[in-house]
Amino acid sequence: MVIKTEIGFTTRDRIYVRGRDLADEILGKMDFIDMIYFTATGSKPDDRTRAMTNAIIVTATDHGLTPSAIAARMTILGAPESLQGAVAAGLLGAGNHFLGTMQNAATFTRDEIGELSDSDDEAAYLARAEEVVRTYRAARRIVPGLGHPIHVEGDPRTPVLRRIAGENGFDGRHWRFIAAVETAAQKEYGRLLPINAAGAVGSTVSDMGLDPVWARAFALIGRSAGLLGHLMEEIANPQGQKIWDMILAQDDSAELAGLSDPAHTDKHGDRK
Amino acid sequence: MVIKTEIGFTTRDRIYVRGRDLADEILGKMDFIDMIYFTATGSKPDDRTRAMTNAIIVTATDHGLTPSAIAARMTILGAPESLQGAVAAGLLGAGNHFLGTMQNAATFTRDEIGELSDSDDEAAYLARAEEVVRTYRAARRIVPGLGHPIHVEGDPRTPVLRRIAGENGFDGRHWRFIAAVETAAQKEYGRLLPINAAGAVGSTVSDMGLDPVWARAFALIGRSAGLLGHLMEEIANPQGQKIWDMILAQDDSAELAGLSDPAHTDKHGDRK
Amino acid sequence: MVIKTEIGFTTRDRIYVRGRDLADEILGKMDFIDMIYFTATGSKPDDRTRAMTNAIIVTATDHGLTPSAIAARMTILGAPESLQGAVAAGLLGAGNHFLGTMQNAATFTRDEIGELSDSDDEAAYLARAEEVVRTYRAARRIVPGLGHPIHVEGDPRTPVLRRIAGENGFDGRHWRFIAAVETAAQKEYGRLLPINAAGAVGSTVSDMGLDPVWARAFALIGRSAGLLGHLMEEIANPQGQKIWDMILAQDDSAELAGLSDPAHTDKHGDRK
Amino acid sequence: MVIKTEIGFTTRDRIYVRGRDLADEILGKMDFIDMIYFTATGSKPDDRTRAMTNAIIVTATDHGLTPSAIAARMTILGAPESLQGAVAAGLLGAGNHFLGTMQNAATFTRDEIGELSDSDDEAAYLARAEEVVRTYRAARRIVPGLGHPIHVEGDPRTPVLRRIAGENGFDGRHWRFIAAVETAAQKEYGRLLPINAAGAVGSTVSDMGLDPVWARAFALIGRSAGLLGHLMEEIANPQGQKIWDMILAQDDSAELAGLSDPAHTDKHGDRK
Repeated sequence: MVIKTEIGFTTRDRIYVRGRDLADEILGKMDFIDMIYFTATGSKPDDRTRAMTNAIIVTATDHGLTPSAIAARMTILGAPESLQGAVAAGLLGAGNHFLGTMQNAATFTRDEIGELSDSDDEAAYLARAEEVVRTYRAARRIVPGLGHPIHVEGDPRTPVLRRIAGENGFDGRHWRFIAAVETAAQKEYGRLLPINAAGAVGSTVSDMGLDPVWARAFALIGRSAGLLGHLMEEIANPQGQKIWDMILAQDDSAELAGLSDPAHTDKHGDRK
Repeated sequence: MVIKTEIGFTTRDRIYVRGRDLADEILGKMDFIDMIYFTATGSKPDDRTRAMTNAIIVTATDHGLTPSAIAARMTILGAPESLQGAVAAGLLGAGNHFLGTMQNAATFTRDEIGELSDSDDEAAYLARAEEVVRTYRAARRIVPGLGHPIHVEGDPRTPVLRRIAGENGFDGRHWRFIAAVETAAQKEYGRLLPINAAGAVGSTVSDMGLDPVWARAFALIGRSAGLLGHLMEEIANPQGQKIWDMILAQDDSAELAGLSDPAHTDKHGDRK
Repeated sequence: MVIKTEIGFTTRDRIYVRGRDLADEILGKMDFIDMIYFTATGSKPDDRTRAMTNAIIVTATDHGLTPSAIAARMTILGAPESLQGAVAAGLLGAGNHFLGTMQNAATFTRDEIGELSDSDDEAAYLARAEEVVRTYRAARRIVPGLGHPIHVEGDPRTPVLRRIAGENGFDGRHWRFIAAVETAAQKEYGRLLPINAAGAVGSTVSDMGLDPVWARAFALIGRSAGLLGHLMEEIANPQGQKIWDMILAQDDSAELAGLSDPAHTDKHGDRK
Repeated sequence: MVIKTEIGFTTRDRIYVRGRDLADEILGKMDFIDMIYFTATGSKPDDRTRAMTNAIIVTATDHGLTPSAIAARMTILGAPESLQGAVAAGLLGAGNHFLGTMQNAATFTRDEIGELSDSDDEAAYLARAEEVVRTYRAARRIVPGLGHPIHVEGDPRTPVLRRIAGENGFDGRHWRFIAAVETAAQKEYGRLLPINAAGAVGSTVSDMGLDPVWARAFALIGRSAGLLGHLMEEIANPQGQKIWDMILAQDDSAELAGLSDPAHTDKHGDRK
């Protein structure tokens, strides 16, 4: 019963990652993007992959008071002794509704593209896309990678990610497929459901030849940095208590309970 | 190099916890409070300990939209596939500022009570308490177990917990000590800093003869149930998206950025 | 945009849970099992439900060095400052393979029982069970609630849980269904796949009329106590470093890398 | 009661991070290292900072079966549905004993360096270091940043990190201080306690002029990638069950319980 990991091990004098000496062969010679690939696969990425990966991880890093950021800020309010706990709390929300959707969209493009190849024409892509969209609709399933509650006319990240994918040779058949799916969905539903960032990242990851799990991995790595940005801001200029107070002030449970003068709105004065 | 746990093990036919057969000797014969003690110590609690423990854990269970509950609700909004992830996110906030304070107060009573014994009179308790309060103030340290941002005139849980402690024989020297600390602090600071629920639980745990870590353990067990109540409510009647929308609506970053017509407040209409 | 939770709120003087005063109406009057239900539903359980719930949660509490317990012990080894972090790490493993299976089995019994009612006879149950087993087999899906890697001839918890369910009136049609599924599976696969503890708990939860999510909730509450037992033992008598050393000693990566005298087995002497 | 974050916000058409348009001004124009700084501070790092940061994060990424990696692997064994849960479980161990030590060492160098400036000579550094070491020893406190259980004659990462720090202008007075502390500790304790990687990173972070919390942030970002490498390997070539089996095989609880033929060692045959 022997355990085996290719990732690395330590001796009295040296540390090895994927068979290379961390101190002599890796530190100062690989950047972090290299190291992500090297740790997971034993190989460094080429320049195109490095550029594309930077764009994907940067996309996932942050953009304000997301539920993940709120969870992290609520957590450090109660447990300031554990920065890692607050980051973990934030990452736990990177699931099937937010961020983890990047993996779901990658899986969708990989699994539903069928037999389409680079040599097929747009009509073939559209025919397949229409079939997929109809099947999803009949099963009352959401089509992954499309639609956004805020960016209803188009996700601003999508065209830029596609352009970067194109510059690096990763706008292949999965990108053509998701674009056809967008067209098919508009026809089927009678309104635009634009390719969102998850669809853009998912298609790119598939066109990079990576397993869909990489999309969620990139999202988690990027978001860990975003959460740390929030937590550093929270330490320097706390908003968590204000967020909590505001939620309590909007909670009308006390009023509904028939308290004519609910102290729970007054109380916030006491806190400050 | 042999690993050893007293807690339990499994054979092909049986499961043992603390040396007893789970199926034949435990299931249906111990309730959960028994099992908490039995798993951790190998002994069942007596009736007084059981009653006191129920009161402590019930105290910790829940009381509305705490930061822990908000973190759990934000987490399931993003990751509905993982109930355990949302509970974990909520528990991660049970730290040195909220809930974990029960352990800190227990440690305080245990470590600062000095040589005081049951036979000492109130004057001796007060003298020791005054010394401790002065020392904490000089070191600019918060006195654990005192004061509450909302319940400024008294935490409603404290007298009830003390009464239950008294009924069960757990209002001993640590309770006398924290009461003296409350008196000493009022004198020192010139205003009432009432014993809060953490102080009440901490003193009780010390008077039960338990290590302070039990206070945080009770808090985590109770709060796990409270968080599950929130999450079941969230599944049935979601509030998480509304909480998020409200936070965004109160976030004035867009306005400060000079956007005259910030769409980020309008957008919420699109979501529903 | 008003937020609403039925669970509770706080005023300057009082704390309310489900409309009742925590201090005056709950503390000392409800035990923790009551409080679990009261927080989640606003009602206390009857005696039968209380007895059954104790048995279910006790089942989930602990039984030795499970992956959850190992994760919790590894976590506190690195982060002794955060007991809640170690509990959270352990709970994160309560998913679709371990413990969370209780919910999956409850869902299975609820969703696959079809039109079977109390008045149907065993032949009707078996016919439905055979249909379900064949369907699962054809789809190469695991039948939830059956089989165990260790307890190959029968899970010792199952008959006891069924007896307790019977004593409390919860061995209804879902228990009859899972028993029929066990029989059907033995016929279909040619070997016994005994009802495991997840199947027993899942059927019971369905016969209690509770949503399947309660099964995972009970599992998480019980396991939080089990993990705390492990962590208290770990603090008093650490095994985590030994577990780590043992894993490294079994990791043959260094030897495979061609190191003739791998220091990584020697090094453990240095640690102690 | 207005909430404010500088980090970012979203409008119907655009996403802003630190006042810049994510799609037009950031994607493809900043790499991930830039984005870490930009999200947290609003400024991009210079080339020296970028090179140093890459080296620090790469140091933290991974090196085999650490307790964090074991916790993550145990977690995905139970909950394969939640990659984020397994990463979170692994990060929760990045605390005061492992990885979080980088922050502790940074704090140590910042807080204990006293009045030492660049113009002070080595004798002044040594005098201060001796004072600090004696104070720590008297208080029975561990000196942060020194000593390693495996690399007893020197941590291989330390000289490389110092060289890279030197190349980028970050081997200033905090590095001189920790080196003096190493010398003072050897004199005080009579044996070498070499500067470990945490000490090297901590000194570097202080010499970069960053708050100590950045050291833990870099560690968490790097380790998130390392954990994802482990989890991808675990998905492709599972070791978790073997690790668990091995731990159970080494657990002698059954034998100690007097079972002459403990089935718990045989049982593993059943699992495979």
